[in-house]
Amino acid sequence: MLKHFLIFIKLLPRKGKKFYYLLYNTTGVLARRKDYYLLAFQHKSLMMKDEKGLPLNNERLEYLGDAVLGAVIAHELFVRYPNKDEGILTKMRARIVNRSNMDRLALQLGLDKFIKTQALSDLTHTHIPGDALEALIGAIFIDKGYFAARKFIIEKIINQYQDLDSLIETNLNHKSTLIEWGQKNRCSIHFVTEEYPEKGEASFVAQAYIDNILMGLGRGSSKKEAQQHAAEEALEKVIGKQSLILN
Amino acid sequence: MLKHFLIFIKLLPRKGKKFYYLLYNTTGVLARRKDYYLLAFQHKSLMMKDEKGLPLNNERLEYLGDAVLGAVIAHELFVRYPNKDEGILTKMRARIVNRSNMDRLALQLGLDKFIKTQALSDLTHTHIPGDALEALIGAIFIDKGYFAARKFIIEKIINQYQDLDSLIETNLNHKSTLIEWGQKNRCSIHFVTEEYPEKGEASFVAQAYIDNILMGLGRGSSKKEAQQHAAEEALEKVIGKQSLILN
Repeated sequence: MLKHFLIFIKLLPRKGKKFYYLLYNTTGVLARRKDYYLLAFQHKSLMMKDEKGLPLNNERLEYLGDAVLGAVIAHELFVRYPNKDEGILTKMRARIVNRSNMDRLALQLGLDKFIKTQALSDLTHTHIPGDALEALIGAIFIDKGYFAARKFIIEKIINQYQDLDSLIETNLNHKSTLIEWGQKNRCSIHFVTEEYPEKGEASFVAQAYIDNILMGLGRGSSKKEAQQHAAEEALEKVIGKQSLILN
Repeated sequence: MLKHFLIFIKLLPRKGKKFYYLLYNTTGVLARRKDYYLLAFQHKSLMMKDEKGLPLNNERLEYLGDAVLGAVIAHELFVRYPNKDEGILTKMRARIVNRSNMDRLALQLGLDKFIKTQALSDLTHTHIPGDALEALIGAIFIDKGYFAARKFIIEKIINQYQDLDSLIETNLNHKSTLIEWGQKNRCSIHFVTEEYPEKGEASFVAQAYIDNILMGLGRGSSKKEAQQHAAEEALEKVIGKQSLILN
């Protein structure tokens, strides 16, 4: 309470203090420069351009935020799981930064009230919120540096998982889930799997088809692994990542 | 010269000072803790294990270094090219962190004298040097933090490109290069391209076959783009990235 009051006092002399205060309340970030954050919430559908005719939207910040997010999560998992190999850490990271999860987290944070888009009034079934969350990370990184971005990612993304370990254990059989889904929805499911030579290592690539439409691609060091990845991607398209554990 | 002498004096009381000094001379990094760096150069082929039976090799550090490298390069390109869109920045980054380039840079730095492997005496045609370079970045990050890792990446990787801009302009026609390569080497080349539905956006996936063996996979927002990416990957396997501009 006192902290909020102090922030309010600190913001008094600033122009556009309402935005700073709302942003602080929603994200815990006391911005230095407003413009990066405004840009982070600006979707390309607005078709805004600057005086040079360059696009003014959040896509550059999203590119930056995505890379920073990847590094911070890689680091956190590296430190928290000293006994887990890089394969497991890579999988855990992919599950955390998964687009559907990022969309959900962005809405949970309440970023929708900042997002400016021409696209749709209901953002629920789009990737616009998750992309804005990544762009916000880019904005924090550029405005306040690596450690501020790291703090935000740990508090608002990693700590949202009550039980990170469950991300390791959630080792679903995506292939059989997809086949069951096909039976329920009267769609034919088939896989095409090929060997795929990689320097020194055997490697496979699998394609998952639903009603003869390619819906998932996967690679792996075994036929089974490649098919699992292809099935996972196809499932994500048809039912979303309902299987992931979020608070 | 004086700087080197001071480093030498600073290292005098340390155990294993020869390693620290050699590492400093090769990489410009004055390590705090030796063990991370020793691990960074330890290839999995040695099959080393710790007292708990966990593998002792550079793969976890490589996973970390890869993520840090991605973030630092994303940031540098973001700042250096304020007028380039995220598509171009993503492409430039991919060309910088390309495995063959990382292998070449690692050998150019002289990391081969540190690498411990059971695999081969000649590391030239393997990815072992590039993987060790990524692991070294992970070691610097864990040992000395984000800014030290950033400094190393800028000096030893980004600044090795005399002309970063040329990475944008090198927009080769990989498909026709692959077809020419096939004619020269009497191999049949063919592509299989399929539409691939992605939320809201048209997307394509292409496969490049050399003598009916799948050698490249690519995605893109057009048939042409997907085939270019597939051809690029296939070319990388058969001739390496000779096209990239390195000093």
